[in-house]
Amino acid sequence: MQQLILEDYAISVGDISRVLPLFLSERSYSSLLILMDENTRRDCFPLLEPLLPDGTPRQIIEIPAGETHKTVSTCETIWAAMLHAGADRKALLLNLGGGVIGDMGGFCAVTFKRGIDFVQIPTTLLSQVDASIGGKLGIDFGGVKNSIGVFRNPQAVFIDPRFLQTLSKRELYSGFAEVIKHALIADPGHWETIQSGDPAALAGDTQTILRSLGIKQTIVQADPFEKGIRKALNFGHTVGHAVEAWSLQTDRPLLHGEAVALGMIAEAHLSNQLTRLPDRALGDISRYLLHTYQLNALPEDCFPDFIERMQNDKKNAGGRINCSLLEAPGGARIDQYVSEEDIQRSLRYFNACVLRLGTRRE
Amino acid sequence: MQQLILEDYAISVGDISRVLPLFLSERSYSSLLILMDENTRRDCFPLLEPLLPDGTPRQIIEIPAGETHKTVSTCETIWAAMLHAGADRKALLLNLGGGVIGDMGGFCAVTFKRGIDFVQIPTTLLSQVDASIGGKLGIDFGGVKNSIGVFRNPQAVFIDPRFLQTLSKRELYSGFAEVIKHALIADPGHWETIQSGDPAALAGDTQTILRSLGIKQTIVQADPFEKGIRKALNFGHTVGHAVEAWSLQTDRPLLHGEAVALGMIAEAHLSNQLTRLPDRALGDISRYLLHTYQLNALPEDCFPDFIERMQNDKKNAGGRINCSLLEAPGGARIDQYVSEEDIQRSLRYFNACVLRLGTRRE
Repeated sequence: MQQLILEDYAISVGDISRVLPLFLSERSYSSLLILMDENTRRDCFPLLEPLLPDGTPRQIIEIPAGETHKTVSTCETIWAAMLHAGADRKALLLNLGGGVIGDMGGFCAVTFKRGIDFVQIPTTLLSQVDASIGGKLGIDFGGVKNSIGVFRNPQAVFIDPRFLQTLSKRELYSGFAEVIKHALIADPGHWETIQSGDPAALAGDTQTILRSLGIKQTIVQADPFEKGIRKALNFGHTVGHAVEAWSLQTDRPLLHGEAVALGMIAEAHLSNQLTRLPDRALGDISRYLLHTYQLNALPEDCFPDFIERMQNDKKNAGGRINCSLLEAPGGARIDQYVSEEDIQRSLRYFNACVLRLGTRRE
Repeated sequence: MQQLILEDYAISVGDISRVLPLFLSERSYSSLLILMDENTRRDCFPLLEPLLPDGTPRQIIEIPAGETHKTVSTCETIWAAMLHAGADRKALLLNLGGGVIGDMGGFCAVTFKRGIDFVQIPTTLLSQVDASIGGKLGIDFGGVKNSIGVFRNPQAVFIDPRFLQTLSKRELYSGFAEVIKHALIADPGHWETIQSGDPAALAGDTQTILRSLGIKQTIVQADPFEKGIRKALNFGHTVGHAVEAWSLQTDRPLLHGEAVALGMIAEAHLSNQLTRLPDRALGDISRYLLHTYQLNALPEDCFPDFIERMQNDKKNAGGRINCSLLEAPGGARIDQYVSEEDIQRSLRYFNACVLRLGTRRE
């Protein structure tokens, strides 16, 4: 069992049965609400259920899986279930699932009766290395990802690598995109390790999770409300979010990490043009990501749609498009304002790479 | 112009034209969003509009007036309007209206793109003396008042007594109930003043507003998250909220302050039974409130409905009913758990008082 101690909560990485019962016995919650989707209820809850104390009332709240359900309407379902269960301010919400469950469940907890405690039990690699630090909670609204939400830390995070065994390879790789991103913005040594290792083995490795969490912790603690350096974590996400949101309306939706991988290629190109990322690093990044992820070229007639989505991104001010770019692997530059033409060129670069390199390494 | 300086914001009481332009010029907001209902747009916005700087984009967001619109659905309307206006994280929301506008607008600001600045410009006596301190934001959900919300302070509050001239006498008196409550829980001298003065004159008086604000400030600063003494402010509200929620479903809805006046009579009776409020004080309170407010007896067959609503109140834990009572005028006792029978007796006491005393002083 390893623990990362943050300012006001701890992240435990290891066997959850060694930490959760103690956490619960040290506190006197009036009831336990467990938020899950049908997948985590089937695959993950069997590991959790024996750890819940018999004496405390519990209520399961099951919602449908998937980003398309990260909505106000699902929040209403969750709030209603909490009210119906008679939950009071001393109730605890346990969010068992990926980023959707954690972000939306956290938001529902923070707003229920003006705030009850919640803990995150992330079950995907993406949520383990990314969503478990930083206190970003929320839902999608008006076609804009995470446009409604708040910042708030959970009371605790429990990361058990055994949950990753329930994931498909595609989902595991999706989470790995954030591991790659953390390395690219702040840890050149880790980027070297990643390039020379086997993605499948690295993606499920406890030490990789801990190293990635450590990078994020350092950045978030330096800037909890995303006024400065924390924006570095948005590398790959300006383009990635826009393409992800678009793809959800097509019949070939991208996973979040796949969209971020695509976004990192486009934004590495922007970095090469605007913040002097060396040609060689651009080539390494593009090649590695296209060999690791199965990505398709983007339709050129959708570029204006992507750009409009970027202009609506909540990170932007005054309609300009703000990116976090790289000056080198391991070195980020925040608050880079890019033009529509820059974005278009970077998307065309991505498409050209797909044509040249886009065969999956097997 | 008088100012109350709180921990992280200031409340200005006086001519808004002397303070708002300075506040705005000291900050560089990217846009101004003004939330109003049809009444405040007509009656209050003419006072505000000339004070807004020409150079900053502005967007009016109008919602229908009334507590029945304090819903998730109206929040969606507000969020959509903010997105549609292209509001970014440096936008400011000005909430021009009563408690519904302030509570719901504040909630929308805090959750929009994980939080933008907001200021409160309360236009009713109720919101001026009550909602402007304490950071309670939220909406009604699932039939429970304010069941969804957060605690967060605004960047500033601007109280201009001229707005009160737009109110009906009934609305002004409704707000005065909170003035009475503040006196009853913490300021026996003010309670004496109130009993000997003319309610109509007192209700619109700047010094009365300031004295009432001062009481609330002292209590909230001692306990911002309502773990202890702040609960004293709930005097009259356990019964009051339940009856108010019920009345909204009848054809004779009560104003909030009317429901609180009724609740204070019932809870003064509980205080007499459980926390030794002297008979004479109980009589003074009941007589004063029934002479000031036009209140009708409550149907006995609705008592179980009221009690169920109280058990669902977010202030309660474990299904028990928690009241804040009085041991004397000016002295509150929090965390008093009362039985269903106690509540029923207090409601019957209220009904008996209405029969005996319920003629409005004119």
